[in-house]
Amino acid sequence: MRMIDLIRKKKRGLSLTEEEIAYFIDGYTRGEIPDYQASAFCMAVCFCGMTDEECACLTEKMMRSGDTVDLSSLAHTADKHSTGGVGDLTSLVTAPIAAAGGLSVAKMSGRGLGHTGGTVDKLESIPGFRTALTEEEFFAQVGRVGVAVVGQTANLAPADKKLYALRDVTDTVESIPLIASSIMSKKLAAGAESIVLDVKFGSGAFMKTPEDAEKLASAMVSVGRAHGRKMAALVTSMEFPLAPQIGNTLEVEEAVRILRGEDPRGYGIRTVAVRLAGEMLSLSFGLDPEEGAARAEELLRSGKAYQKFLEWIRAQGGDVSVIEEDRLPKAPYSRTVLSPRAGWINRTDTEGIGMAACLLGAGRMTKEDNPDLTAGIVLSFAPYDRVEKGQPLAALYSSDPARLDDAEARFTDSLTFSESPAEPSPLILKAIR
Amino acid sequence: MRMIDLIRKKKRGLSLTEEEIAYFIDGYTRGEIPDYQASAFCMAVCFCGMTDEECACLTEKMMRSGDTVDLSSLAHTADKHSTGGVGDLTSLVTAPIAAAGGLSVAKMSGRGLGHTGGTVDKLESIPGFRTALTEEEFFAQVGRVGVAVVGQTANLAPADKKLYALRDVTDTVESIPLIASSIMSKKLAAGAESIVLDVKFGSGAFMKTPEDAEKLASAMVSVGRAHGRKMAALVTSMEFPLAPQIGNTLEVEEAVRILRGEDPRGYGIRTVAVRLAGEMLSLSFGLDPEEGAARAEELLRSGKAYQKFLEWIRAQGGDVSVIEEDRLPKAPYSRTVLSPRAGWINRTDTEGIGMAACLLGAGRMTKEDNPDLTAGIVLSFAPYDRVEKGQPLAALYSSDPARLDDAEARFTDSLTFSESPAEPSPLILKAIR
Repeated sequence: MRMIDLIRKKKRGLSLTEEEIAYFIDGYTRGEIPDYQASAFCMAVCFCGMTDEECACLTEKMMRSGDTVDLSSLAHTADKHSTGGVGDLTSLVTAPIAAAGGLSVAKMSGRGLGHTGGTVDKLESIPGFRTALTEEEFFAQVGRVGVAVVGQTANLAPADKKLYALRDVTDTVESIPLIASSIMSKKLAAGAESIVLDVKFGSGAFMKTPEDAEKLASAMVSVGRAHGRKMAALVTSMEFPLAPQIGNTLEVEEAVRILRGEDPRGYGIRTVAVRLAGEMLSLSFGLDPEEGAARAEELLRSGKAYQKFLEWIRAQGGDVSVIEEDRLPKAPYSRTVLSPRAGWINRTDTEGIGMAACLLGAGRMTKEDNPDLTAGIVLSFAPYDRVEKGQPLAALYSSDPARLDDAEARFTDSLTFSESPAEPSPLILKAIR
Repeated sequence: MRMIDLIRKKKRGLSLTEEEIAYFIDGYTRGEIPDYQASAFCMAVCFCGMTDEECACLTEKMMRSGDTVDLSSLAHTADKHSTGGVGDLTSLVTAPIAAAGGLSVAKMSGRGLGHTGGTVDKLESIPGFRTALTEEEFFAQVGRVGVAVVGQTANLAPADKKLYALRDVTDTVESIPLIASSIMSKKLAAGAESIVLDVKFGSGAFMKTPEDAEKLASAMVSVGRAHGRKMAALVTSMEFPLAPQIGNTLEVEEAVRILRGEDPRGYGIRTVAVRLAGEMLSLSFGLDPEEGAARAEELLRSGKAYQKFLEWIRAQGGDVSVIEEDRLPKAPYSRTVLSPRAGWINRTDTEGIGMAACLLGAGRMTKEDNPDLTAGIVLSFAPYDRVEKGQPLAALYSSDPARLDDAEARFTDSLTFSESPAEPSPLILKAIR
């Protein structure tokens, strides 16, 4: 078998066999197939796509390239995955609801990169919180508390890691089967029985259109089912930031408010977090989706989810007094951004807002960056609001005052002011079950 | 500027600017842009193409990556280039006609690779012939005799050399703008004022359809004109071998026969060689194409081209007595292939016939191979002939008797026998001037 023949086949729009995909992934992981052939192959996939069978097979080969976590000693294991966005703190709300509802949420989570945040960074902004648990600690905590979230320590899907790094520098990221197999190889390796996906579309998401988001969601659901997992996906909007607070401690603060019963006007965070938890419950327990959603809502409303959150944070070493007494660390420098004009804010360049938070220090531009956990943005308008000239739109926070100017410019550039109001577009477009 | 942004632009079907193309070629030649980005870029070009301006610009940047030959001290410099085929010995006939007609044919030629032969290998099969001349010898001979053909010694278009090697292993060869810029970067660097292209289509050619061949011809003519050269192209058929003798000495022998006045029944070699010389004469002297063709025909018919051929071979050290006395070296082993059945030979897998000659030792499978100059095939049928079962179809020649079996099998597999006769398809489909 020769890699050039596989490239040729894909370039002509033909499907690869399981043996061919195994040859590619094994050879590439071992360094026997060079980067320049792998990148040409990925570019051909960008243009020609893959069948569901090819995608499932590629996922499996990448999953099997490294460790797989055996969660079978735990009952009702469930995981959620979001394709990433701005102000997307759903895991901080969804995980304690799910755990309070009797699920085992044994989650390996990523760090943020670019304009999207990562759950591990957010949790580490809580003083004392440890994201590096031993395997024993991790399993014991999930068994006892129902939830543990750690940074990825196991060698999950190294083939994907290598291939993703190559795709990132060769503009071959944007391909639905390649994205689906990349995400699912890690999710499957992480071992949960039920997996709920939150696939985002819009200006702050990786998928710009609802159509592409739906295709990606369907592809991932299909791959997961082909591997015997219980799967569901929501296709949700990231046209606006999901929550009014963006940045690590700021998002923890927002999560705490929601867990305590608040619901920020006009933002989707509470709705999406509850729906995701509902989907996890209904998948795991075989409930109707409405029943799962109602249970999730009740777990949040009753305060059980908040109690579970505090239990979880305490279990991982976090100082819960800081949370209970609203003493999360604050950035020393801030600036209020005033509206440059009057109008309706019917759309934002949400990725731009995420980048403004990055410029404040909240995110990573490269994997080596150390984020400023207190940096971020607090929005004082809601989606579709009418604002007046000179009205405060946001407060920017940073530990470095020199970052405020660039961030303000980027933030202001990310807003569009319209002459007339608009009808809000739907937040949850579709559920794929 | 970043290479990934250039890849992204091309992947989205946009055109690159001159600065961007220069950045790519300079960076790639210097090793600053890695192979994996260059191959992804080439694959995007395979799908999205290039405009004429991009192609001309890419050609220029590759041409300027190395030496350019200054032929301005010679009058009426003219070159021809064939995209390669089987039994394509046109240069051996066209060059002496053109020189006899007053043109300066200062030609740097390639060696064969795969199923196509190279003029330098063919000339080296003449005892004593030297293809390595000094620059002074080369210029002096063209000035005195009107023709010299040498192997490529100057560092012509090293960017193309590096990029072609990458395209060859990443299945990104088949792209008209990439092929056009690759060929033309070397042709332009070689310095001739008039360039005539022979772009072949069919089962033995690189371009499988007349449409693709015509597109490639037009692209190359357009690139050459953008660089101020006089350009013409013929689109010609390589559905059958161009001549009945395939292999290095065998093709010299065939050329000599044609120069002496023969015309092998049913094969296109004489017609194409004369037409190419005619196009060179008309381009250089500003004649009507019919006038150029008539002059070329007259130069061949009168024996002037043959005398010029002998003068040329002698000038480069070749033993002309071997030619005049028909004593070119012969391979020690041969086999006659008999027809396995009766029928009309209306098509051949011409590339397969070329590969059979390769298996006999006539060609190179890798650049390091040393071809057996006496090996090859002499066909004893003509295109569209009716043959009977058991009738001799060809004689195979090799210096290694162990090679005959595989070659015979490959040769026989390359023939198709039909139940009924067919109308010959046109040899020269189109002239682009």
